[in-house]
Amino acid sequence: MIHKRKLVIFDTTLRDGEQSPGVTLNTDEKVKIAKQLSRLGVDVIEAGFPVASPGDFLAVERIAREVGPLMEDRENVGKPLTICALARAVKKDIETAYDAIKDAPSHRIHTFLATSDIHLEHKLKISREQCIERAVEAVKLAKSFCNDVEFSPEDAARSDHNFLVQILTEIVAAGATTINIPDTVGYLSPTEYGDLIKFLIENVKGSDKVIWSTHCHNDLGLATANTLAGIMNGALQTEVTINGIGERAGNTSLEEVVMNIHTHPNVYPAYHTINTKLIAPTSRIVSDLTGMIVQPNKAIVGKNAFLHESGIHQDGVLKNKETYEIIRPEDVGIYTSNLLLGKHSGRHAIKSRLEELGYLGKDMTEAQVDQIFKNFKRLADSKKTPVTDDDLHAIVSDQFARAPFSSEIANAELTEPVSTISESSENKSQNKFYELASIQVVNGTNMTATATVTLKDISTGELLVDAALASSGPVEAIFNAIKRIIDIKVILKSYSLSATSSGSDSVGKVVVRVQEDNEKSDSPILVGVGADIDVLTASALAYVAGINRILIQKYDVAGSRSSLKDRSAPV
Amino acid sequence: MIHKRKLVIFDTTLRDGEQSPGVTLNTDEKVKIAKQLSRLGVDVIEAGFPVASPGDFLAVERIAREVGPLMEDRENVGKPLTICALARAVKKDIETAYDAIKDAPSHRIHTFLATSDIHLEHKLKISREQCIERAVEAVKLAKSFCNDVEFSPEDAARSDHNFLVQILTEIVAAGATTINIPDTVGYLSPTEYGDLIKFLIENVKGSDKVIWSTHCHNDLGLATANTLAGIMNGALQTEVTINGIGERAGNTSLEEVVMNIHTHPNVYPAYHTINTKLIAPTSRIVSDLTGMIVQPNKAIVGKNAFLHESGIHQDGVLKNKETYEIIRPEDVGIYTSNLLLGKHSGRHAIKSRLEELGYLGKDMTEAQVDQIFKNFKRLADSKKTPVTDDDLHAIVSDQFARAPFSSEIANAELTEPVSTISESSENKSQNKFYELASIQVVNGTNMTATATVTLKDISTGELLVDAALASSGPVEAIFNAIKRIIDIKVILKSYSLSATSSGSDSVGKVVVRVQEDNEKSDSPILVGVGADIDVLTASALAYVAGINRILIQKYDVAGSRSSLKDRSAPV
Repeated sequence: MIHKRKLVIFDTTLRDGEQSPGVTLNTDEKVKIAKQLSRLGVDVIEAGFPVASPGDFLAVERIAREVGPLMEDRENVGKPLTICALARAVKKDIETAYDAIKDAPSHRIHTFLATSDIHLEHKLKISREQCIERAVEAVKLAKSFCNDVEFSPEDAARSDHNFLVQILTEIVAAGATTINIPDTVGYLSPTEYGDLIKFLIENVKGSDKVIWSTHCHNDLGLATANTLAGIMNGALQTEVTINGIGERAGNTSLEEVVMNIHTHPNVYPAYHTINTKLIAPTSRIVSDLTGMIVQPNKAIVGKNAFLHESGIHQDGVLKNKETYEIIRPEDVGIYTSNLLLGKHSGRHAIKSRLEELGYLGKDMTEAQVDQIFKNFKRLADSKKTPVTDDDLHAIVSDQFARAPFSSEIANAELTEPVSTISESSENKSQNKFYELASIQVVNGTNMTATATVTLKDISTGELLVDAALASSGPVEAIFNAIKRIIDIKVILKSYSLSATSSGSDSVGKVVVRVQEDNEKSDSPILVGVGADIDVLTASALAYVAGINRILIQKYDVAGSRSSLKDRSAPV
Repeated sequence: MIHKRKLVIFDTTLRDGEQSPGVTLNTDEKVKIAKQLSRLGVDVIEAGFPVASPGDFLAVERIAREVGPLMEDRENVGKPLTICALARAVKKDIETAYDAIKDAPSHRIHTFLATSDIHLEHKLKISREQCIERAVEAVKLAKSFCNDVEFSPEDAARSDHNFLVQILTEIVAAGATTINIPDTVGYLSPTEYGDLIKFLIENVKGSDKVIWSTHCHNDLGLATANTLAGIMNGALQTEVTINGIGERAGNTSLEEVVMNIHTHPNVYPAYHTINTKLIAPTSRIVSDLTGMIVQPNKAIVGKNAFLHESGIHQDGVLKNKETYEIIRPEDVGIYTSNLLLGKHSGRHAIKSRLEELGYLGKDMTEAQVDQIFKNFKRLADSKKTPVTDDDLHAIVSDQFARAPFSSEIANAELTEPVSTISESSENKSQNKFYELASIQVVNGTNMTATATVTLKDISTGELLVDAALASSGPVEAIFNAIKRIIDIKVILKSYSLSATSSGSDSVGKVVVRVQEDNEKSDSPILVGVGADIDVLTASALAYVAGINRILIQKYDVAGSRSSLKDRSAPV
């Protein structure tokens, strides 16, 4: 029996994960993800990089105030979530970071400076001595604000090991409480990374006073293995993201590290306090809001992860589950039974299924359940086949409920505003400007696609209608009509659609990425999601949702952003 | 300087990869992938499991005859591809496997038997002694047919280590030339897997006479790390798939293992002879034909794998590429320059771009280039924005060229048959029954979607037309009209759509999975792909392609399949 210590799960989905190309989350979405991470039982979240823009600052501040104090569903952990903010080793960054997080009951400043010669010479243009001086100053400043201070020597993996010992000894003396060792470019092998952690713990003076942390990237497909090698060699914190999202090939996946430890309780000298049953729902929420799809053969959270195709496997599983199953799907919140619901299923059945699927936190109001039930009934009435768990996921996900839209309901219902699960009652800020009322399309091989779209202006209640055509088909015709109504220049960066389940009357989910086409070339690229049984309606809903997000960013300071060049950090 | 030996890259995309849930490849597609793997420079391919069905047998036989002798683009390797077939440790399996592969200049029989107690007790219901006896007999029989014989103790990772030494010593004595150690359920850590390989090499008598091989699964996200640990400990063959496809969370990714070795030439005691520049095109071909999407943050082959979002990263990359790049994108066949082509680009420009993108093997005929150029011109004429590499990928991929379909060309052109890149001139078998001629759609919020579809019966040249409606939107209405014309019962298992590049007039690619709804519940699920700038047209093309594949399976013995229960194997 090995002596096990608590592993600190540090989730950076909202900071390093949000740096995935093409991903931009607004404040409401960040708060929603933060709440889910709190329920999942992570110990620390890196909520953002406050100095990057006023929008980043306000998002971190709101998370510190609204999510920091929550204790719901954290029985496993027994203490509140630590809200962390990133800062370069620069006075203004550190002050701004502290301002953003200070209202959280538990908070941390994370400051970083590159230590590899290639970065010192080519990027920072400073000497090793200047590097030590600047880093120590930064940690001391952070320490003057709060006790919990983390330092990362950026590109540690390619830094001179003896220099690392030298600088980190000074950093520990300056009061840092966590030392994080980033393999910034995802270059090392597990043996090399594990050896590096071991070498530093053995050689840095005072290393026993701090927590050592891993931060790995997946460029060579080794992020999980490197992280586990770090844990085997003494690291007691691990920096991860949901679904392994992040720049390039992404960061280490939270779900893979946690389930390795879970499956091998006698191998790793650490235990976790994650509520593993919330892994699958959390994965879906992050995938929905970021638009980062999860491939079917992704470990733990891929659609196929627990499917047995081979006949010999199926036979084996029927005889004895252990022959081919090392994780029970239920343990990560995947229910293969797929309870089918129909138009006669009641509110109670829906509510208990939502609970089983991991969606119902204690913060979900009865009004939200009502809204979901209403949308469930609408879908069940128009579908010929039963409503599946996948359909329920689409209903719960942000956008199905956005507009009370289906061929069954008349425009008359449009006067009633629809609240969705993502709109918390505390949130007074307007989070949509337009709502889809109806579409009409004519299209064919030897004719030009023509669309007529009606939108509702939420602030005035006015219905606005226009038509447009497109040589390339009905989707572009719809988008052109919407752009005529709203009078905004928008570039469509990507468009994708997937059906939630089998059958041609399942719910289709469209994800678009849009960008305002203005003078500045640095407008953020924003995601819009729409779901409906009709793919053209889903496309229109997604496009309107995307444009609403552009308008939110434009008119809401919380959504404003400085240029990309400043907004994100490499660690 | 370490002494390096040649690593045998054993690709099992066509066997273990094809066992991915929902993936079924027809013979032509298997031959196409096998040719690409030959050009990529893999050493051995596992082409299938011949005893499983007459279709599997014929596919392996065709690959042995058509791909086995090819030496084009194999200068790096210097010898022909070894064609391997899988067989249980059963007489009929081994005889059938040999029959299928015997015409390849280089061929191998791969036989397997489970050795873990859980499998012996619950699945096979035999004793350890019976296990040894059966395995030795199988290897001896295989050896009587050919010299190159591989044996896998299934579920080796959970087998008693001393029993493994005992059985494998007998297996080596019986004449096996390669011993493969599968971690069938993806359970081990890199240290455990590496230690197992080391232990076996040190303890099995005659271990120096055979090549040791790794076979890892990715259930815990460790397949690549485990494989590399095996190589560090003496394995000189590695079993992999393109994009890491396979059952559940899949197999080890070829591209990750190869690029680890490539990036760390002084770490691993082995070298490879893969033409890395063909990695990205091979990844796309496999993803297109299997319908298994690759997530953007997939290592090496994901869309984001070489994208730098962070401003600090971008700045660093501009100052010195090495600051954040450990692999040059060009080295894996990704060209970030994205040469733009327009309607004035000539045939020569297209041809040289196709060469750069890795598509033009020496087996591509001028007629095929002509066809691609024709489709390129059609797209360039109808697009307002330049044609990108992504659009070219869509053109080259199977389905854009399937029907001479766009709003610009009249039905008159339909009499001219279109050959696509996937249809080799040697292949005389009919590979489509119907071709899309035109569609017409009317759709709207308060109306029932109505579609009129015209199909061409390829064998008679007749144009067939019918209309249908659907409450759930135009896609279902189109599918219903197609089903009326062809008179076939089809279940739509999944539907997804993605745009190839930004802009609403980019090419949309639809992937459907369809299954015939007949008495037998075990009809294969087949993929249909369609690409067009109009999503409804792309949907119709994909659905027709899927139905054509159902008809091919039904009427072509090469496509016939026995029940799932027998067709695939767990190794």
